Amino acid sequence: MNKDSIITIVGLGVVGGSYAIALSKRGYTVYGVNRSAESLDAALESGAIARGSHTPEEFFSQSDLIILALYPNQIVDYLRKYGKYIKKGCLISDVAGIKGIFVEEIEDVTPEGCEFLFCHPMAGREKRGFKYADDKVLQGANFLIVGTDRNTSSAIETMSDIALEIGFGRVRIIDAATHDKVIAYTSQLPHAIAVALINSDDEDSETADYIGDSYRDLTRIANINEDLWSELFIGNKQNLISSITSFERQLLMIKTAVEEEDGDLLKKMFIKSTVRRIGLEKKK
Amino acid sequence: MNKDSIITIVGLGVVGGSYAIALSKRGYTVYGVNRSAESLDAALESGAIARGSHTPEEFFSQSDLIILALYPNQIVDYLRKYGKYIKKGCLISDVAGIKGIFVEEIEDVTPEGCEFLFCHPMAGREKRGFKYADDKVLQGANFLIVGTDRNTSSAIETMSDIALEIGFGRVRIIDAATHDKVIAYTSQLPHAIAVALINSDDEDSETADYIGDSYRDLTRIANINEDLWSELFIGNKQNLISSITSFERQLLMIKTAVEEEDGDLLKKMFIKSTVRRIGLEKKK
Repeated sequence: MNKDSIITIVGLGVVGGSYAIALSKRGYTVYGVNRSAESLDAALESGAIARGSHTPEEFFSQSDLIILALYPNQIVDYLRKYGKYIKKGCLISDVAGIKGIFVEEIEDVTPEGCEFLFCHPMAGREKRGFKYADDKVLQGANFLIVGTDRNTSSAIETMSDIALEIGFGRVRIIDAATHDKVIAYTSQLPHAIAVALINSDDEDSETADYIGDSYRDLTRIANINEDLWSELFIGNKQNLISSITSFERQLLMIKTAVEEEDGDLLKKMFIKSTVRRIGLEKKK
Repeated sequence: MNKDSIITIVGLGVVGGSYAIALSKRGYTVYGVNRSAESLDAALESGAIARGSHTPEEFFSQSDLIILALYPNQIVDYLRKYGKYIKKGCLISDVAGIKGIFVEEIEDVTPEGCEFLFCHPMAGREKRGFKYADDKVLQGANFLIVGTDRNTSSAIETMSDIALEIGFGRVRIIDAATHDKVIAYTSQLPHAIAVALINSDDEDSETADYIGDSYRDLTRIANINEDLWSELFIGNKQNLISSITSFERQLLMIKTAVEEEDGDLLKKMFIKSTVRRIGLEKKK
């Protein structure tokens, strides 16, 4: 990819919009496709995209890189419908938070002569739409490339370079099965927990008057995009259920120790969690 | 309380030490009692206390305010042993995170002519010892006064004034039963969740390479003082178990919805959590 390359981003939400801002700032020619006029107009006005359209046909025929910043369930259909307009040699990518559910299907509908490289930028916001897009969102975040047998090292290199150029802190290459398992535990389970925690409060309680940082930290992500996350949860069903089950088992151990007033067992669990948490900080 | 008053703090850990620093800065004469020489020496050197001792007899006979910054289980015995040295008219307080378990017992052993006012500063750190004490820890935090029938409004006013003077953001008065119920949900449950979350990871997993802010936020408090928190959990057994049970029920609803691929139900739960979380920020 060089600065004469044309990059089309489909979906100018927080992630797609933040990509557009960051790429335009670095001199790339960015075209944007979006269903709603609001985000499209805002992106054009701010200079995040050079041209905008509600449909991709014309842009696809000119693009060297296409990023489908769509919800996971939309990608296959989108490629089925518009894949034929994509020019040969184009690199196509996505931003979806789950992969296993559609990797094969997407590779099957990827136009001949093009390569699809699955990517998961671990960045985002609870809010929606281009007005919340900001290239700061990407700064220092993890960028996961989910490689398959059909990917070339040059495509991986291209996306890796772009990710680092627009501010991601670290690029990692991972296979789809591992990706979905890890994401179930590190991202989806925390979201499920945050939602369950805040929803388990009594109605009309005065909790807000008595909370400290811990409750605030644990519920921040309970402000959640319901359309996207219901897709992510169901699309990664087996991994998520297995992560929830492991977590439930640990919580039950704590509950039982409290019930039995087994201070020694509680201490052992707390020491284990402390060691793990300190280890996490060290690896930061 | 005025600037000629003598305040003795028993226990120069993070909370007791931070009180000492803040009170000395504001011109009070602060004496410190601590078992270990290390924290005592450090507190003396830093000027956080004017005098230090391993035993409280002498200081108690001179103090107008005594703050027992001890673990919850130590307070009753401490008063039994040293209460007789406390001078008449002295106000005694604590910093314990649970109350119901010992309120009556403590009032029974409070020396005649003295008043015990239960307080819970909602501030602290995962680390231990005076070297981690810092009056910044108190800044803006909630300060809960747990009033009983035996408390006078002048004692409540005194502690409230001091709390605000040393940096707490807000003082609230609450009864012991409500306090323990609210704390089980807003503080103890989040700690139990954080511990269960980090402990449910596979051994030798490479999770640390793939985490984002959400996992980091949800596990911060998994670094936990095992002696203190095992006491707090067991000392608030019924409330904590009931909070965990309500949470488990909500999490099971999410898990079941994922299992049944019930996107509509998931969305409903996510919308509820989003509304609640936004409401929380507004009340901040």
